[in-house]
Amino acid sequence: MAALVLNPDRLFPADPGTRAIARRLYDAIRDLPIISPHGHTDPVWFDRNEPFGDAASLLIIPDHYVFRMLFSQGVKLEDLGVPRVDGGPVESDHRAIWRRFAENYYLFRGTPSRMWLDWVFSELFGMTEILSSKNADSYYDAIGEALASDAFRPRALYERFNIEAIATTESALDPLDHHRAIGKSGWKGRIVTTYRPDAVVDPDYEGFAENVAELGRITGEDVTSWTGYLNAHRNRRRYFRETGGATATDHGHPTATTADLSQAEAEALYATIRSGDFTPAQAELFRGQMLTEMARMSIEDGMVLQIHPGAHRNHNSMVMARFGRDKGADIPTQTEYVKALQPLLSRYGSDPALTIVIFTLDEDSYSRELAPLAGHYPALKLGPPWWFHDSPEGMRRFRERATETAGFYNTVGFNDDTRAFLSIPARHDVARRMDCTFLARLVAEHRLPEDEAAEVAHALTYGLVKKAYRL
Amino acid sequence: MAALVLNPDRLFPADPGTRAIARRLYDAIRDLPIISPHGHTDPVWFDRNEPFGDAASLLIIPDHYVFRMLFSQGVKLEDLGVPRVDGGPVESDHRAIWRRFAENYYLFRGTPSRMWLDWVFSELFGMTEILSSKNADSYYDAIGEALASDAFRPRALYERFNIEAIATTESALDPLDHHRAIGKSGWKGRIVTTYRPDAVVDPDYEGFAENVAELGRITGEDVTSWTGYLNAHRNRRRYFRETGGATATDHGHPTATTADLSQAEAEALYATIRSGDFTPAQAELFRGQMLTEMARMSIEDGMVLQIHPGAHRNHNSMVMARFGRDKGADIPTQTEYVKALQPLLSRYGSDPALTIVIFTLDEDSYSRELAPLAGHYPALKLGPPWWFHDSPEGMRRFRERATETAGFYNTVGFNDDTRAFLSIPARHDVARRMDCTFLARLVAEHRLPEDEAAEVAHALTYGLVKKAYRL
Amino acid sequence: MAALVLNPDRLFPADPGTRAIARRLYDAIRDLPIISPHGHTDPVWFDRNEPFGDAASLLIIPDHYVFRMLFSQGVKLEDLGVPRVDGGPVESDHRAIWRRFAENYYLFRGTPSRMWLDWVFSELFGMTEILSSKNADSYYDAIGEALASDAFRPRALYERFNIEAIATTESALDPLDHHRAIGKSGWKGRIVTTYRPDAVVDPDYEGFAENVAELGRITGEDVTSWTGYLNAHRNRRRYFRETGGATATDHGHPTATTADLSQAEAEALYATIRSGDFTPAQAELFRGQMLTEMARMSIEDGMVLQIHPGAHRNHNSMVMARFGRDKGADIPTQTEYVKALQPLLSRYGSDPALTIVIFTLDEDSYSRELAPLAGHYPALKLGPPWWFHDSPEGMRRFRERATETAGFYNTVGFNDDTRAFLSIPARHDVARRMDCTFLARLVAEHRLPEDEAAEVAHALTYGLVKKAYRL
Repeated sequence: MAALVLNPDRLFPADPGTRAIARRLYDAIRDLPIISPHGHTDPVWFDRNEPFGDAASLLIIPDHYVFRMLFSQGVKLEDLGVPRVDGGPVESDHRAIWRRFAENYYLFRGTPSRMWLDWVFSELFGMTEILSSKNADSYYDAIGEALASDAFRPRALYERFNIEAIATTESALDPLDHHRAIGKSGWKGRIVTTYRPDAVVDPDYEGFAENVAELGRITGEDVTSWTGYLNAHRNRRRYFRETGGATATDHGHPTATTADLSQAEAEALYATIRSGDFTPAQAELFRGQMLTEMARMSIEDGMVLQIHPGAHRNHNSMVMARFGRDKGADIPTQTEYVKALQPLLSRYGSDPALTIVIFTLDEDSYSRELAPLAGHYPALKLGPPWWFHDSPEGMRRFRERATETAGFYNTVGFNDDTRAFLSIPARHDVARRMDCTFLARLVAEHRLPEDEAAEVAHALTYGLVKKAYRL
Repeated sequence: MAALVLNPDRLFPADPGTRAIARRLYDAIRDLPIISPHGHTDPVWFDRNEPFGDAASLLIIPDHYVFRMLFSQGVKLEDLGVPRVDGGPVESDHRAIWRRFAENYYLFRGTPSRMWLDWVFSELFGMTEILSSKNADSYYDAIGEALASDAFRPRALYERFNIEAIATTESALDPLDHHRAIGKSGWKGRIVTTYRPDAVVDPDYEGFAENVAELGRITGEDVTSWTGYLNAHRNRRRYFRETGGATATDHGHPTATTADLSQAEAEALYATIRSGDFTPAQAELFRGQMLTEMARMSIEDGMVLQIHPGAHRNHNSMVMARFGRDKGADIPTQTEYVKALQPLLSRYGSDPALTIVIFTLDEDSYSRELAPLAGHYPALKLGPPWWFHDSPEGMRRFRERATETAGFYNTVGFNDDTRAFLSIPARHDVARRMDCTFLARLVAEHRLPEDEAAEVAHALTYGLVKKAYRL
Repeated sequence: MAALVLNPDRLFPADPGTRAIARRLYDAIRDLPIISPHGHTDPVWFDRNEPFGDAASLLIIPDHYVFRMLFSQGVKLEDLGVPRVDGGPVESDHRAIWRRFAENYYLFRGTPSRMWLDWVFSELFGMTEILSSKNADSYYDAIGEALASDAFRPRALYERFNIEAIATTESALDPLDHHRAIGKSGWKGRIVTTYRPDAVVDPDYEGFAENVAELGRITGEDVTSWTGYLNAHRNRRRYFRETGGATATDHGHPTATTADLSQAEAEALYATIRSGDFTPAQAELFRGQMLTEMARMSIEDGMVLQIHPGAHRNHNSMVMARFGRDKGADIPTQTEYVKALQPLLSRYGSDPALTIVIFTLDEDSYSRELAPLAGHYPALKLGPPWWFHDSPEGMRRFRERATETAGFYNTVGFNDDTRAFLSIPARHDVARRMDCTFLARLVAEHRLPEDEAAEVAHALTYGLVKKAYRL
């Protein structure tokens, strides 16, 4: 069986001279602590510190990167144990699920999932052969045994991974019980929340009216008025900062639309939205206005504003009806930024006290729109390659397309943006390697002296994320 | 004069270590048979097996890749012998046409046409000097002499090219006489047709109403009803399978729009279309509905559905009026896939029994739209880089942008998509070399073990195309 | 302090074999004269030949590439000496401005500005250390001293830079006094103007009506009629040719829209535009029609038609209100060419006597739209990578995406498009190096023989620009 080897030079360019430069740059930053300023790990893990389950329940069933690829090649989601909306039967034999995954592991060749998984198998579980149908059982057993040990509990892994801080993401209505409990526990890990108000900002969100009513209840503000509604956000943002250590907000809108309405216009729009009788354009305008309101509050309270636009959610109606949201059927769409962001940026983009981190699923916007915008507006910074583009080639394209106009210092380091906790070191390592690879090319082509490249590598790994996210 | 040399390492990366890997990967697949599942060779060639004409009539006059480049630099199409719509005089001295081509051969530097033509000149005709005005006549004579020999008849070339199967493309109304004759001839070459119903599916197609009437006549179905019209397609698809060996259909629409109308809506739309009094939006909707109908029939009969959207046909009104269609004036347009394909994919995309091969002329869709769609839907596979992107850099971009999200196994190998029969081995060879080049980089960067890369190279060259096209 | 070294192999690929080829190609063309067919240097420099000012007034205050990056990182434009619209106070201590720039010089790592500036510092001013806050003063003094010397007057630099011809850009209403004076001066430098009629062609231009009236006055034509208005353009184009040596016109429109109206339609549209009561669509149509009129005049008088579409001007309302136009807040937008250019190209694009040079800020159009259009239409040529894309990676993308379809000979060499006179040799040098780098890869991958690559390198540097711009 084929040996599983993580070559120390992986991802570095093949040219020996450039590779040597990349290795030197990387060696100086490889052991820096991980700061994970945006992601979706579950705070209950760090609160209760209970063991994770088995290989399938940890690595397959919840990971849409993994099961979407198997589904695309004809494996049924039921056979991978993905729960059905109607509670109907799905595969409950986790070893059988693992075997299905193992026999299809070749499908992941050339994908980042393969790199992350191989790292997890090799570095965390000590596997020495590449996963295949032949060793599926021994993998399953070894992983299960390790996960049952104390060394694999969430807090132990947090420490082993050398994490300095990690952000989770909670709904604006979340009581943050786990963050509070972690804070009181005396554990020194830093688990901060992020204020994600989509459910009370997006009129098209399921249960929007009830969500806003709930927002009023928990904040004691009169959300029937525009002013009260905004104050409820202020109240809640403060709660997220004080109880959950939040330094950032996050907004997942279908587009990057922003608006800059007058007070009277905004009040009238909010009344229309509250009536429930609004057009799609009005919903879009309201979401856009709320981004500008959030920017205004960020100037008041110092929280970083993150915008993640451009995903067409739940594209596959069949999968949505049977399995629900987040089942690997979200597809990027073309996303326009220049006109969309102008209302917000013209109003607040010149204020250096504000930090907006913009993400994209549309790589074409890097050189055409986002780098020129970030290369002008003091408030705007470029988030790292996101989701489908969180990959070696995606990172290469980002640096190649964004750097010449935005420079390095209008970017903010890496986000893993994942709930796959075990893969977090692997993901950060890929980013570090690819940044060093890009810098090594600049050095080898005499476009940047190596000592300056080393400073940049440090900034991309550690300095910029700390500064941008105030962590 | 400059020597014409096809370097055995051509297209491989310059870095010596990576090149050695590429060479090893390529050596193992270079001699695999050619499967050409989509193209435009003329079945009459293989039926009658008559000699091709001279160098100009074979390589210049019918090849829009060649004459469009000469036209772009001021050579008149008349002077290249391209026939006029009005039958007016054009250059009839084929040697003069060849000389014009030869003296402008430098214009093709850096283009795939140059690589294909050099291969044809060197490998098939034994030329040892690069074509120029100085050796134009000796080229012309040598090529003419070779083409008159039995070794250059179509069947002999098919065998020499090591073709295992090749697909032609015929209109839904074509009687397939040549395919029938080839089938009866006892010759062992495999020439299969492809069902291309644009003329009876696209309301904007010239003569659409008459074409549909003709479809009714040859199938015996009542095409005045929606049901009869669909049955006529079923009938014709069966004829294409039984008489022409077809395993696929092909659809060249201006956009990727699909629709999923109710039976009643579809009947009403068909009636409107038949009336001849329809809007552009109704024509678009009808084309979109017919893609979904074709998918439904593909699930019934197992034929592969190919979609080739996004060409703005006949952009140059002057050239269209004087020389007609397909004269190098088709220009790609931006093409949206996410919303466009949703009706079809939500309806049938989760069925692993269906295979849809999607092509694009808009490379931006690779990483943003097509790879995420193909990396989710079991029915959807990515066709290879097409037309303007059937080139070394086009292939590189395709693999770099699609692989990390779609993997290799949601792609379907190479299509030459050409009527330039002599260039077919050269085109497949470019694809094999570029795939091995991409894989060699993954190996050199320790992203994929070499034994797995070798398996992938075999799949990309032979396995995936056989499986996807059921050939 | 770190040494400032311009490595002779800068920008060449790291692979030693490929680098050696690039060096050979470059050595053969590096000393060819500079032809600068499109740019924004000020003719008064060459007329009066007065010394430039100090380091800040020459290199910082007027250079939006430089101050936009500093602004993006929180430096106020006031503190960089950028003049305010209201004439209010800004930093007037140029040494202080220079120090601010120096201490932030690290922000330019990885940008073309850094490469250009390092060249200027090293090659022109003899600096031997990289600029930093520590040596800011010695830089400022040394640059100031040099600029006061005769060797740094404009005409001396023109000669030192080995410029064969340079084009400036003037409004259609400009009297061209400096060009006339240069012509009479007996100096042998070739400073030609370019006809830029935006102010009298774009109905949305500030003061359009007055501008058109002024056009009538200075030409003696009756601009109240469509015919008279067109004759005024003819008159003015002749003046630009005869007085300013112009060989080209230039058009900076928001989109690439063209139109091909009948005489009657055009007359009616002109009357509507003149009335001042027009819609945005009518303004767009008028601009589009004027491009076609300009093409018609170009066929008459031989002037090259340049189109620079796709910039969203003055995106930041705050900066526009306080500092005015051209302050680094112009942002590229997605730009459609296929439909937009069809009216013009179908009418005149097949005429080899016409040369249209098309530029883009939307790199996605290279392979999808522009290369296919330029690879067909005899009149259409591709301008070099522009503005944000005038950079090593931008040039690499341009050649990789455009060459396989358009070839090299449908491109027109390099434009520096700058008013930063001192950087012109550095900019041309980057283009020469990147073209040789691209060609070296083709040679190393056995896609083009080296002797042919050398011919192409010469054409890209010198031959094509002379031919396209008739200089």
